[in-house]
Order: sequence, then C-alpha cells, then structure tokens
Amino acid sequence: MAEIKIGSYLVERIKELGIETIFGVPGDYELVLLDMVQEAGTKWAGNPNELIASYAADGYARVNGYGAFVTTFGPGELSAYCGMGGQYAEYVPVVHIVGYPSTKAMKERAIMHHSLGNGNFKMYHEMVQALTVASTVLDDPSTAPSEIDRVLNAMVYFNRPVYIGVPVDIGPKIVHTRNLETKLQKAIPPNPPELEKSVTDKIIDLLLSRKDPIILVDGGAVRNGVIQECSELIKLLQIPYFVTPMCKGGISEALGSFGGVYAGVSSTDDVRSYVEKSDLVLFIGSYKSDFNTGEFTAKISPSVTVDFQRFTVNLLGAEYKLNMKYVLHRLNSTLKSSKKLPVKSKVEWDPYPLDQLKAPEKLTQDFLWATLGRYFRSGDYIIAETGTSAYGIVASNLMNVDNVHMYSQTVYGSIGFATGAALGSFVAGKEKNTMKRGILVTGEGSLQLTVQAFSDLLRHGLNTTMFLLNNEGYTSERLIHGSEATYNKIPTWDYSKICELFGPSFQKKYYRIEKPEQLLKLLKDTEFNAAHCTQVVELILDKHDAPMSVKRSAKAVEEFNKE
Amino acid sequence: MAEIKIGSYLVERIKELGIETIFGVPGDYELVLLDMVQEAGTKWAGNPNELIASYAADGYARVNGYGAFVTTFGPGELSAYCGMGGQYAEYVPVVHIVGYPSTKAMKERAIMHHSLGNGNFKMYHEMVQALTVASTVLDDPSTAPSEIDRVLNAMVYFNRPVYIGVPVDIGPKIVHTRNLETKLQKAIPPNPPELEKSVTDKIIDLLLSRKDPIILVDGGAVRNGVIQECSELIKLLQIPYFVTPMCKGGISEALGSFGGVYAGVSSTDDVRSYVEKSDLVLFIGSYKSDFNTGEFTAKISPSVTVDFQRFTVNLLGAEYKLNMKYVLHRLNSTLKSSKKLPVKSKVEWDPYPLDQLKAPEKLTQDFLWATLGRYFRSGDYIIAETGTSAYGIVASNLMNVDNVHMYSQTVYGSIGFATGAALGSFVAGKEKNTMKRGILVTGEGSLQLTVQAFSDLLRHGLNTTMFLLNNEGYTSERLIHGSEATYNKIPTWDYSKICELFGPSFQKKYYRIEKPEQLLKLLKDTEFNAAHCTQVVELILDKHDAPMSVKRSAKAVEEFNKE
Repeated sequence: MAEIKIGSYLVERIKELGIETIFGVPGDYELVLLDMVQEAGTKWAGNPNELIASYAADGYARVNGYGAFVTTFGPGELSAYCGMGGQYAEYVPVVHIVGYPSTKAMKERAIMHHSLGNGNFKMYHEMVQALTVASTVLDDPSTAPSEIDRVLNAMVYFNRPVYIGVPVDIGPKIVHTRNLETKLQKAIPPNPPELEKSVTDKIIDLLLSRKDPIILVDGGAVRNGVIQECSELIKLLQIPYFVTPMCKGGISEALGSFGGVYAGVSSTDDVRSYVEKSDLVLFIGSYKSDFNTGEFTAKISPSVTVDFQRFTVNLLGAEYKLNMKYVLHRLNSTLKSSKKLPVKSKVEWDPYPLDQLKAPEKLTQDFLWATLGRYFRSGDYIIAETGTSAYGIVASNLMNVDNVHMYSQTVYGSIGFATGAALGSFVAGKEKNTMKRGILVTGEGSLQLTVQAFSDLLRHGLNTTMFLLNNEGYTSERLIHGSEATYNKIPTWDYSKICELFGPSFQKKYYRIEKPEQLLKLLKDTEFNAAHCTQVVELILDKHDAPMSVKRSAKAVEEFNKE
Repeated sequence: MAEIKIGSYLVERIKELGIETIFGVPGDYELVLLDMVQEAGTKWAGNPNELIASYAADGYARVNGYGAFVTTFGPGELSAYCGMGGQYAEYVPVVHIVGYPSTKAMKERAIMHHSLGNGNFKMYHEMVQALTVASTVLDDPSTAPSEIDRVLNAMVYFNRPVYIGVPVDIGPKIVHTRNLETKLQKAIPPNPPELEKSVTDKIIDLLLSRKDPIILVDGGAVRNGVIQECSELIKLLQIPYFVTPMCKGGISEALGSFGGVYAGVSSTDDVRSYVEKSDLVLFIGSYKSDFNTGEFTAKISPSVTVDFQRFTVNLLGAEYKLNMKYVLHRLNSTLKSSKKLPVKSKVEWDPYPLDQLKAPEKLTQDFLWATLGRYFRSGDYIIAETGTSAYGIVASNLMNVDNVHMYSQTVYGSIGFATGAALGSFVAGKEKNTMKRGILVTGEGSLQLTVQAFSDLLRHGLNTTMFLLNNEGYTSERLIHGSEATYNKIPTWDYSKICELFGPSFQKKYYRIEKPEQLLKLLKDTEFNAAHCTQVVELILDKHDAPMSVKRSAKAVEEFNKE
C-alpha cells in the first residue's frame, strides 16, 4: 500500500496546481508541515509578516493561476484576513493553510497560546467562512485526503480563496495515496450545447444587426481567465474595444482597435460618449464596483448589453446559465467560419490625450502617467497601488507594448496591497521566466503599511523598480475629505534608506525626482532601463495634485457618501 | 434642546473613559469622524498600519485603563483583528471604531470598495463577534446614543474589547445630549455582603490554620485592576509571594517577601518546590495558559487553592459568585483590624540565582537578562516581546526597583505585538507623566512584523530604548522544531538604519553589542541611562542560545504537540 503523510498529500495537491513557491510566516504549530513543504521540493518563501504573505500569495496567483500561503493559528491567520478579503472580492484562488494546535489540546480545551483563552478552537474557522468558498480543519486522518480535495476543487471551481487547517499532530499522520490518482477538477463542466449554440447565434445576430457595437473588457475577464478568448474576438471583429480600470493592463492594447479606458465620469470625454452611445456592448467580466465605474457613473443600459460572467451570460436582460469561457470559444469559432461579419469600425479619437501634454514646471501626476506609458516595455510586470497610482496608471498608454502584466486591486482597494502583491507576482514571473522587469508603482502612504516586503523583494533578487509617489500623505483622501487635515499627513521617512535597512548586502540605486526633465532623463537612461538591481525612484509631487480621473472620481465619492 | 453629532457623542464617551489619544489609520469612510475626534480636543495619533494601531491601543489601555482606535471598514478592520484577539484573550478593554460605508450604499447593496463585492455589509460585524463582548453598527440615529452606551458599558464591565461601526452619513447626524447626563458604569456592582463576609472569613480561617500559605499573583490580577489590593495583602501578611510570567513586572517585587517567578518546569528549582508544597495558595487572577504555566506543568491542587477571579472566588474547589476586588478589600480591612494574623514567613532562597552568573566569553541570554535587571530603574516602562524576551525577562531581578510598568503578551503570544504596544504604553506614560524611560525588549524576528511602528515611536518623542536580540531568526521556534531549518532563518537587515529610514530628523543612537563587557559598559554609561533620544541596542546572540526557562519550556511544547 502506497502511503503518504497528510501534510505531504496536501503539498502534492498544491504542486498539482502548478504552485512552486509557498509564502507564509513560520509558527510552532506549523513547523512540522514546513518540513514537508521542503521535502516535496516546493520552495518556502517566508515573509516578514502574514499580511504580506497573503498579498504575496495573491500576486503569485494572479500570474501563476493559483497561490498558497501558510500561517499559524490565531494571530498569524487573523493578520492575513485582509489579504483574503481581497482575494475573495477579486476572484483570486489562494489556499490559506493554517497550522492548528494538536487535536489533543483542542479536545482538552487547553488554554493554548494564540487561542482566546476560552477553550474554544473553532472561532477562527467560523470567522473565515465569510472570506472563503470552502474550508476545513483536518481533525480526522481518515477523511483528510478527501477533505483536502473537496476544498481545493472548490477553490478551482469558484476561483476564490479557501482555508485548510492542519493540527500539528495531524500533518505527519500516514494515509493512503489512492486519492491522488484522481486529479483535481481544473476544467469547469461544459455548457449544455443546444443552449450555448442558441445564445451564441443570438449574439452574432445582434452583432450583425446593431450599428456600432463595442467590446468592453472588465476585470472579471482577467480574473476568470478569458483574456485569450477576448483578444481573439477583438481581432476577429475589429470593432472598438475598451477596458475598465480593473482590466487596465490585463489585455493587450495593441490589437488594433483600442478605444481607451472607460469608467463613467473618470473617462475622457471621447471615450465616455462613444461607449455610452453604443447600441451593443459585449461586456466581458463586468464588475460594477465604485472605483471601477467612476463611482457608479458608468451608464450602460442592460438593453444594449451582453454581460459575460463566469457562470452566466446575460443577453439584453435575459440571463442564461452558461459559462462565458465556452460561449466565447463558440462565438470565436463560429465567427471564424462565418461568411458574414459585422462591419468593422475605426477608432477615430485619441485614447490617451494626455500623451500630448507638454512638460509642466513642476512634476505633475498627469505628466507622470503619460510619461510612464512611454517607459513601459514588453515583458514588464507593473503593479499599481490603490489610490492615485491605480487611478493614474489608466492614463499610461500601453498601445505600443505587448505582453505586459499589469493590475491593481480595483475592487477591494486595500492600501499596502501592491508592495506585497508585487513580491508574489515577481516571484512567479521569475519562476516562469516571463518577466523582464518588475515595476511597483505606489504612494508613500500606502508603502508605509507593508514596507518590510522590500526585504523579500531584495533577497529574492527580483530587481524591482519602485516608483514611489511622495505627496506628503494620503492625497486620495485629501481629495475626498480633509484637504489640509492633520490625519491625512504621515510621518516623513527617508526613502533613500529603504534598501539599506532591508537588504544591506544587495545592490540598489535610489533616485529623487522633482522636475519633469529629471524624470525624462532617467527614463531614457540605458542602465536604469536595464534594471539590473533594485531601484527606488522617489517622485516629489504636490500634496493636492492628482490625475484627472481621481479628481473627478473623488468628487463623486464625497457626493455619494453625503447623500 | 442640547444637541450633539453622533460622532461627537461617541468621542465624549471616550473622553469620559480617560482616553486622551486615539490611534488608527484614516480611510475615506471615517474622515468625517476624525474631524470630530479633533474638534473634541482628543488627540489623533495615526499609525502606519492597522495592526500597529490595534497593538498601540492595547498598550495604551494597559497603562491608561481603556484604549480606542479607528480603522476603515474591511481591509482596515480585518488587519486589526489579530490585535483584537490579543485584547480579548488578555482582558484589555479597547474600543475599535470602524468607519462604515453610507447607510444608502449598504441598503442598495452597492459594490463599494472594501466590501467583498457581493452586496453584503454585515459579514465583518459578524466575524468580529468572536473577538468582542459587545458590538454595534450605528444604522439608526435614534438608537445610536443608547447603542454606544450599551457597548461601552459592556467593555467596562467585562474588561474586554468592543466594536462600534459608524456609517459615514451617521457620524454627523444630530442627536439629543440627554444620555450623556448618565455616566458610564465604571464600577462593578457590589457583592452580596453576607456571602462576601462568609467567604472572607473562611479565607482568614484557612490562613490561620494552614502551615505555609503563599500568595501567587497572576496576570488576571493585573488585567482586572487588583494589584493595589494584592500589594496591601502581601504587606499585611508578610508571607512569600510569587508571580507568574503574565504578572512579571505587574506587581512590585520590593514588598519584602518576594519569592520568585513560578511557571512549572520553567521556574527555578527552589521556587518550584516551595510553591508546589505549599498547603494554601491564594492564587489571584490565575490564567492557566501554556506559556504561563511552563506548558501546563504548573501543579497546584484545587484543594489548597483560593482562586480569585473577576467574577468568582473559588475556595478549595467551591465556587462563589463574588467579585474578587471587593473580596480582597474586605480581606484586607478585616486583617487590618484583626488581632490574630497568620505566621509570617521568610524567603530563604535566592529568587534570582542567575544574578550570580559570571560574565561568559560571548554574550548569552542568561547573562543578558540578569544584567538588564540591574539596569532597570523606578519609572521604567518595559515591554517585552513574545519568545525569548518574554521568557527571559522573568529572570530580570526587579526587587530593588519600584514603580516599573512591565508586561508581555503572555497568553496570546503574537509576535510583533511588543513594538506596537510599546508605542501605546509610552504615549500613555508620557501623557500621565508616570514614565521616566520607555524600554522595548524584542527579537529581530518579531521586530520585522511591525517595524514601521518605529516611525511613531520617533515622532512622538518617546525616547525609546530598544534592546534588539539578534539571533539570526526565530530562536524560540528552533528550540521547538527545525533547529537548523531554513524556515527559521529571516532576512538580514541593517538595524543601524531603522531610525534613519523611519525618522531621519530625530536624534538617535545605535549600539552593537557582542560581548558581555560591552553590555556592562553601556549599561553603566550616564548618557545612555539618561535616554534623551531614541536608542537602538543590537545584541548579537547565538541562534541556539536561549534563557533557561525557554529551553525547558520549548522541550515541553514539542512533547505536548507530539502527544
């Protein structure tokens, strides 16, 4: 009989998902499990704290498909719940493995460290229900393999986070390997073919009959893995396509008919008017969150919308239980063999008018984002923080580059996320050999939450280039409320010392940029572009300056909050 | 009709609890509320992240009695749940105020940032039930004042954390001030006098009849505010008294009959044998957690124990619903007027045998802790981190000083806690003018979790002295499991740069100590003792060296986990 330790069984399943690196923070309840992680040939990448571990696993999953991290019962896992909230909200499949006290301690209701001192060991598992699509604490060796499989299959099916608790005495227990013979269910079951065909045909009819159809690709398309299908569809139809902020950088803008970034009032006037007057919107993976819709000012009527979702397709208001992936497959293959295609349509406006902006006296955000667009290259991994960075980067032109990997946490919007997520994405990008440069764009208010992640960025040799917007505090919040309030101030740090504290033995460079010409010069510098070491670029900006999109949106936010 | 904004009402109540400084991280849902914090004359002390804010409020409450911090819905509050877990486990009354989205957004189930994107806004409030004794989200102005009072009264009554959600549109709503005329209930209701008298008399009978009674003061005595009563009792009885690790530094050791620190196998042999053979233990505020009992090796039979708790007194196994505070009051006043007192008894052993240790070749933990004991002075605030610091500091002799304020998070044991808690305690100590020196004792593995709290330690002018044990990673965990494992390694930082990054404009000093004689010299230095600026003392220790108590205990931990 082939045998395996329960902990090793779990690691084998994780490897099956293509996860090569596991993040986390060691704790005494999980140390035995960490031995098994390494025995299995999986890499352990310990982090300075658990919040960073959860963000790193998120960033890793966004590149790799799936992610995993390990923390300890109580303090460890609780510190990571914010990261899980983001994974849940943004459909990032990550398994959070938690080292639990021994089954004996739990049975005896002993007052173990990390418990609440009341003999209860179930409360954290109960709390985490809200942030997961499945969870288990392995208290019975005989069901452990099937429990692991159930939970991981749910993660794959729903594309959202799960939780597996492993008591310290259970990890080393021996079980049969037989379950491993059945692989995890990575493919979603196919659609009913008749329904799929009829809906697809209706979509094609619409495409042929409507005057100015567009494609609007949203974050759900990225997060549910249909970007390839979207790209193919765009190339077949050659009609204007747009992205939302959540999809910015998630699909190539070089497919020939890119129209711009659409988010209601946040959009440029040209983009807004074209999108909102369209009589057919193929809206793929829509996610109508406040930040993603210019505070709910995006106005696209269901009567002109085909709304593609992971488990449903909604055709002008009628909902069908169809997985969008297969519908898009069929749509593409039908169109390919079809004699009659909808009329092609050209983009006759400039999706990036800020590109024409002349260098101002002092560095401004609008100038910055336009300029950064010209710096980005194929193979860049670009992670933008919530706040002015995420809003600003939508104005960076990506129409001349391809194969960039770019995202921000548009829906959940947890500041501090980008630094940790960049770590995970860069580790995955390096592992897969698809990353040429790792670029983090963040503000100093956000950096302060998780700055110690830099220690990992340095030691994993990721040669990160960080653009750090220093605008004396929380500029996004100043724009919403408290323009001059002291609570929107933050302490003054000396950012030239980040790498000196967190990785003294690694090569690094620091630049302080105050003027447009300094930025232009730096971004043309060959060595800087080569990014052979960690580079920190501190950008000095006015505390009230912000990209046009954030200014428009912040006003809408305060109005919405006041109502 | 006198009127007040709901947010201001909440701040008035907080001021009533003696809270002068509120910690937290701003977020757009709470900005309007923060205006009211400042309008009321309360200080706002923003932190780099929410975990630090929760730890700071904890540290503040341990000095001040109560603490408060403000975060934003979702990411903000979730990041602080670990801090709340510690507050719950260790009876630290802190109110966590959370800025919620508008009632309109919640009613419409809008996909707001920081939500999980599913239209639900109740899940975080549900999650936090496990970590609080009362909670509310103020969605109705008419009940808001009474809800605030209900929740804050519960915090006071149970001495544990609570949670108040304030939707962004509710904070500015106007209510009547009438509820403010009734003060919060800060005193626990009195005991039934007959029962209290009869139990007190029984305790006195026991004291007179038993041969070698002792007093064992535990963390519950500190956390439930009966230290003054304990001290008085000890002075009256003049029998040997002991503390547990959770009470270390919580009560003066200079009361004349201090016997040492008791925690089962972790104790010195003399202490252990005296405590365990005693025929009457007045066990005040016992909290039998693993770290506090030498991994449950503390053996004191209920048949010889009078167990004093917040709401109960257990007399040799018989439990009475009596609040210990009033029982101790009565016990003291009865003893004071009593003609017959139990026989006094002397401490005939050395509670701190390590004080005799000669300086070794290289710096060792046992030498360090004994030496630090001689450095501590009256008016010192000393916060020790979980791990070797918390275990080690029990060997620091405090018998020659008084009025120190010392604690570690013995029960919950979340590493990273001490740095944030030190911040809060030092702010409170400075506010109350009871702190002469603020001392943080931590390990580099723990420091890495919340290092950015240093930024606040610097800017609040707290002149912190940090003893940083650098032993190449997680030594406590190496001792439990994975002695040479890579997961117990952590990245190498240059700790001389901490203040340079986090507070470049503030005065600071850095010392690196490798040898006993360097330590002895530094601790005698007048300027160092004066602590007129922030001082970082990096102590280079062997990665396998640990205080005797942690070595003994770690063995017991691994055995317990294996069972």
